[in-house]
Amino acid sequence: MIHQTRLALSTQGYRHIQDITQAVTEIVIRSGVQTGVVHLFNIGSTAALGTIEFEPGLQTDFPDLLDRLVPPSCEYEHEQTWHDGNGHSHLQASLLGASLCVPIAHNRPLLGTWQQIFHLECDNKPRSREVVVTIIGD
Amino acid sequence: MIHQTRLALSTQGYRHIQDITQAVTEIVIRSGVQTGVVHLFNIGSTAALGTIEFEPGLQTDFPDLLDRLVPPSCEYEHEQTWHDGNGHSHLQASLLGASLCVPIAHNRPLLGTWQQIFHLECDNKPRSREVVVTIIGD
Amino acid sequence: MIHQTRLALSTQGYRHIQDITQAVTEIVIRSGVQTGVVHLFNIGSTAALGTIEFEPGLQTDFPDLLDRLVPPSCEYEHEQTWHDGNGHSHLQASLLGASLCVPIAHNRPLLGTWQQIFHLECDNKPRSREVVVTIIGD
Repeated sequence: MIHQTRLALSTQGYRHIQDITQAVTEIVIRSGVQTGVVHLFNIGSTAALGTIEFEPGLQTDFPDLLDRLVPPSCEYEHEQTWHDGNGHSHLQASLLGASLCVPIAHNRPLLGTWQQIFHLECDNKPRSREVVVTIIGD
Repeated sequence: MIHQTRLALSTQGYRHIQDITQAVTEIVIRSGVQTGVVHLFNIGSTAALGTIEFEPGLQTDFPDLLDRLVPPSCEYEHEQTWHDGNGHSHLQASLLGASLCVPIAHNRPLLGTWQQIFHLECDNKPRSREVVVTIIGD
Repeated sequence: MIHQTRLALSTQGYRHIQDITQAVTEIVIRSGVQTGVVHLFNIGSTAALGTIEFEPGLQTDFPDLLDRLVPPSCEYEHEQTWHDGNGHSHLQASLLGASLCVPIAHNRPLLGTWQQIFHLECDNKPRSREVVVTIIGD
């Protein structure tokens, strides 16, 4: 049994991290699937998905970490192609990944109490985003 | 055809890396699924899953790498919320990810000869862990 | 409905990044699956998969980033086991991951316009690679 839909998000630009757990949970409930997996995929190459304890400290620490590992700058070769100053956005997003699978049990995403699903905008401006949600299960 | 179960692990604390390939293989065999995918998901936000050549050198090198990229310290904002000194644990786990899919062929996980499935404890104390194992296939 | 096949790749050695989107698309078309997920998995512990805007600048920037985060050197404990100088190859591959899921819609992988599926060789010599392609859907 396969269900597929899209989740639309508005982002406020670089480092904007959102908790999408509730939105994903509602889609899982509507699917009626009791046991299985929900796959999430960010369309586009400058945003990422993952899991995190979504509390205010880590909402700063995690983008800070990415800034340190992959500094924003124009000194990337990507600039030679597009001249839009977002080479670091691409690199951060490719490092983290655009794809996430979460198990479903009892018609709900199965996560820890302090474990949420995040969407992270890595691009240097606000964007409209689409996350493809594909549910596989019984 | 969906099978879901949980794999319980005991960890010895920070940097403890375990080879869970055999445990996952046994679950796949019991499912009877010949062809498909096994999805693994760590419940909780301070441990990670992945694949690695599970030999003694890399069992040191990989946690060393994470220590270098995301140093243990109390200088994370996460401390303001919890005061438990494990900000780096959350950041390492979110960077690596809690989710892994491995193909199944001939009723076995399909891996390279020197490629194993690892569970890495990133928290700063021993933990009891649950990995959700969801098998999808024929 | 499960379809599984293997995609053979030849790599030119360290830092060789390939766009495998077209090859994956052809496999999805042949499967006849309209809606679902395609799972890709690199067999072996020194190559990685992911998504990126596959343009010349990032084809340099992304391996450069990995070189900076996980420098090639012989100063890894892995050397004690194998003496083949590719400790960084294992670490880069384990950091990025060997597994990727992409949604399928209308019998095609659903990606952004500037979002491609890449295979990255992290080993220090040319290799023959196999990527397991498992398609789940209707």
